[in-house]
Amino acid sequence: MNPPDTPPESLRSCPPGHVTIREVCLRDGLQIEAPIPLSAKLELLDAVLATGVREVEATAFVSPSKVPALADAAALAAELPRLRQQYDVEFSALVAGAGGAGRAVAAGIGSIEYVVSAADGHSQANVGRSTADSTHLIADIARIAHEHDATIEVIIATAWDCPFDGPTDPRRVLDIATAAMEIGVDRLAIADTIGTTTPRRVTTLVEALAPVVGDLPLGAHFHNTRGAGLASAYAAVCAGVTRLDASVGGLGGCPFAPGASGNIATEDLVYMLRDSDIGVDVDLPAAIRAADVARRVVGHDLPSALLRAGDRILS
Amino acid sequence: MNPPDTPPESLRSCPPGHVTIREVCLRDGLQIEAPIPLSAKLELLDAVLATGVREVEATAFVSPSKVPALADAAALAAELPRLRQQYDVEFSALVAGAGGAGRAVAAGIGSIEYVVSAADGHSQANVGRSTADSTHLIADIARIAHEHDATIEVIIATAWDCPFDGPTDPRRVLDIATAAMEIGVDRLAIADTIGTTTPRRVTTLVEALAPVVGDLPLGAHFHNTRGAGLASAYAAVCAGVTRLDASVGGLGGCPFAPGASGNIATEDLVYMLRDSDIGVDVDLPAAIRAADVARRVVGHDLPSALLRAGDRILS
Repeated sequence: MNPPDTPPESLRSCPPGHVTIREVCLRDGLQIEAPIPLSAKLELLDAVLATGVREVEATAFVSPSKVPALADAAALAAELPRLRQQYDVEFSALVAGAGGAGRAVAAGIGSIEYVVSAADGHSQANVGRSTADSTHLIADIARIAHEHDATIEVIIATAWDCPFDGPTDPRRVLDIATAAMEIGVDRLAIADTIGTTTPRRVTTLVEALAPVVGDLPLGAHFHNTRGAGLASAYAAVCAGVTRLDASVGGLGGCPFAPGASGNIATEDLVYMLRDSDIGVDVDLPAAIRAADVARRVVGHDLPSALLRAGDRILS
Repeated sequence: MNPPDTPPESLRSCPPGHVTIREVCLRDGLQIEAPIPLSAKLELLDAVLATGVREVEATAFVSPSKVPALADAAALAAELPRLRQQYDVEFSALVAGAGGAGRAVAAGIGSIEYVVSAADGHSQANVGRSTADSTHLIADIARIAHEHDATIEVIIATAWDCPFDGPTDPRRVLDIATAAMEIGVDRLAIADTIGTTTPRRVTTLVEALAPVVGDLPLGAHFHNTRGAGLASAYAAVCAGVTRLDASVGGLGGCPFAPGASGNIATEDLVYMLRDSDIGVDVDLPAAIRAADVARRVVGHDLPSALLRAGDRILS
């Protein structure tokens, strides 16, 4: 089946398992959009929670002038205790520094995400700091989180490519991961901020990170900008990633990374994983309904495949 | 990195290799569209050939009343000898029976594709015959091809799911493949006709086919209807598939399979494979230009990701 010059070495099948999906439409999904009212966000959040998802990135405590769509972070956070009584769900918020972390824990957020860009170019554009300076801040953010019984996750952005610096040296990713592990963070994730990575590079980086992260849950965050988002997500899961970010409808992007667009769509990811014997907490028909709500509240079409095609309907 | 209940078995990396891409925009891409003039097809074909692709599915010799968009098959075929003098390319045509095969070889087509649907429901809807009857015809088609020094490829449609019959029993696919091998076809391919399969099922079927097809080149044909087309293509390549169909712009569908839409986009596939150290004959910028021509000649937007985002531009 293979020509003589390519040995017939085949992939082993990915082991069946379980992946925790974190729904990020409220933060990564909405941050690039024109601001929508809090009531519309709560309607979207209701639809998202109806999917059964166990983790939701609810908002970001960042500069309201830089991300006006998330300027209502505290007001949104005030609604979350009520929802936590109804649903078995964990809400997280993204922060860019110690100030944001302080505001997040003060607002009752129990799970803090702190982004460190592995590339200096994106780091400067995103938060006005070098990678080294952002890495040094991990200890402060972790202390703030842990003092308030919150968890801290470090998300390593531009883990494969930077729109300003080009391909990211994997050693820069490993260095951040090593620093985060020494500080004692609760979770680590790698992010394909501009949607350029592909399966082989995903496999390579996840395998390189394995000895560094040990038993810590490793997450991954993909954009479908160049069509390979689900292929990269599957490769990540097969290499050991157990947590994936996704956004209903494929809503999302990064305003400070040129060319970025579209998180992988929750419903498309659920379809693929479920059909590949990988368990998820998210109900597929409910995710398609939530994608439809997302499309309505932002008022434009979304790139999701299942929002058009629907679930597989077979006789 | 893995919870205790999922063993840390990781995929081995896909071996670097080479994949032959067959460009199918002229046939599978256009067959569902309103007919366009021959001159527009030739303009698209010129753009396709400029990509360096070595195989092009040029048309189908089928009922003009069922597929009016391809009613000009003989006229298109008459243009191909001229193009073969300019380009190192093989042109193929799809046929549905012995009559079409006869017309194809009479028109000078050197590579015949004959489709056998593994599911009776789709087979009846597509060609008005059962799977068994279509399988019996392989010998006739192969004889016609070989008598005219043409090659014969059997494409097994609805290899994973049928819109009418539900999931396809893999034994039906293996039976067709076995029959085709005994007859002595030149190539075999499996097609996800309605765009429902996912990576694990692809791996499983390709591995099951391996002992049947032996050293014969195995191809695969995916639609991106539910977003997992590239993920399935990557899984197929990792399992031993060395030939993939794709369509510039993601043009295409199947008029007789409800819900089918969009072949995987050539440029998105090339981006992913190239970036994953899998060689292809297709130039990426030229493929994006061809996708733009495809969009113009059909007069509507196409689902390709790279047609929007472009190639990765890094400093």
